[in-house]
Amino acid sequence: MKTDENNNIRPILPEPTLRRLPWYLAYITRLKNENVEYVSSTQIAKEINVDASQIAKDLSFLSIKGKTRIGYEVAQLELELTDFLGFKKGHNAFMIGVGSLGGALIQDSGLIQYGLNIVAGFDINPRLIGKSINGVPIYDIAQLAEQQLNYQASIAILAVPVESAQSVTNQIIDAGLKAIWNFTPSRIKADKHIVVQNTSIYAHLALMYNRMSASDNDD
Amino acid sequence: MKTDENNNIRPILPEPTLRRLPWYLAYITRLKNENVEYVSSTQIAKEINVDASQIAKDLSFLSIKGKTRIGYEVAQLELELTDFLGFKKGHNAFMIGVGSLGGALIQDSGLIQYGLNIVAGFDINPRLIGKSINGVPIYDIAQLAEQQLNYQASIAILAVPVESAQSVTNQIIDAGLKAIWNFTPSRIKADKHIVVQNTSIYAHLALMYNRMSASDNDD
Repeated sequence: MKTDENNNIRPILPEPTLRRLPWYLAYITRLKNENVEYVSSTQIAKEINVDASQIAKDLSFLSIKGKTRIGYEVAQLELELTDFLGFKKGHNAFMIGVGSLGGALIQDSGLIQYGLNIVAGFDINPRLIGKSINGVPIYDIAQLAEQQLNYQASIAILAVPVESAQSVTNQIIDAGLKAIWNFTPSRIKADKHIVVQNTSIYAHLALMYNRMSASDNDD
Repeated sequence: MKTDENNNIRPILPEPTLRRLPWYLAYITRLKNENVEYVSSTQIAKEINVDASQIAKDLSFLSIKGKTRIGYEVAQLELELTDFLGFKKGHNAFMIGVGSLGGALIQDSGLIQYGLNIVAGFDINPRLIGKSINGVPIYDIAQLAEQQLNYQASIAILAVPVESAQSVTNQIIDAGLKAIWNFTPSRIKADKHIVVQNTSIYAHLALMYNRMSASDNDD
């Protein structure tokens, strides 16, 4: 348990709940934009295709309470979910590897809306070092530890080639960052106090391709 | 079961296997670049942190066989894995929504290396329509069905705002595309013959933030 700036207790949630909460948020945001005032867990259930009882349970982790026969206040639920999921707080991040994917992610302004603030990029390419992309300065990867003293980033976004994924991971940990968002298809090894989140979008492609051949088959 | 162009039977794999195979591929590619000739499942196991017996089982879906006491031939294993995962075959794709994330993904040349060929983009923004990004022409979303007759794309990459995710999904299905790679945080509804792959990178951020607060707690 951990208390946030308002001294609320912030529990560590089960992963399935954490995967569902952003779905609810996406739907609630849509309702808010449509000026809907209240929503019940039954309505959310119908839209999201998750049991209403599960939704009520997931939302019970938040401090918001639904009203009998009326449901949750949409605007308040949106605020609470956004805050609860950490999307309101700015998390400073380094982009490690400013190649094709890394450069693309620096340009995705959606990340800042979800609380991720990319403050600097690092690469080994001399044509990138000293430049900036979207206002984000690019440094030599050799300067990682030194720049960390300036920026105090907590998250490293890993988008380097497979062959350097582990050695760069070691550099990131040595520099004192706490979390690694791993976009490489590599499995990286890190001490257990380092948070590693794997998001291999290319691996998702393999899943989709395989399901597509299954679906061809059904025809 | 489905046969590929060489008349090999292509099985529909369990999802956990499909999630692990790209990890093996990443490691094998690294070994190949280091001119390593053979690798055993025990070696892969040590690197990837998956049981050797599980790895042998996963790889048994491929037509490659390891040799006793020598293991798998690295170059052949890389080729087989790449082919098996569908990364060698070009899959034509539309980028639906060329905002921040969609525009960034069009610029990620990594996707083509994994068999995804973005042939056109679609948006409602008049300042984008008629332009091209990275050589990819951007059309009015209203032209989706018409352009599909030209391009015969199989995959739609969905990167539109949450509020239009479902209506655009319906347009995609009406236009005859077979698969939707959903980058929005929305749950979308589609007939069961449509393959939907959810890749909500922002939802992964929520998971990471939550684990980071847990880790703060351990200090």
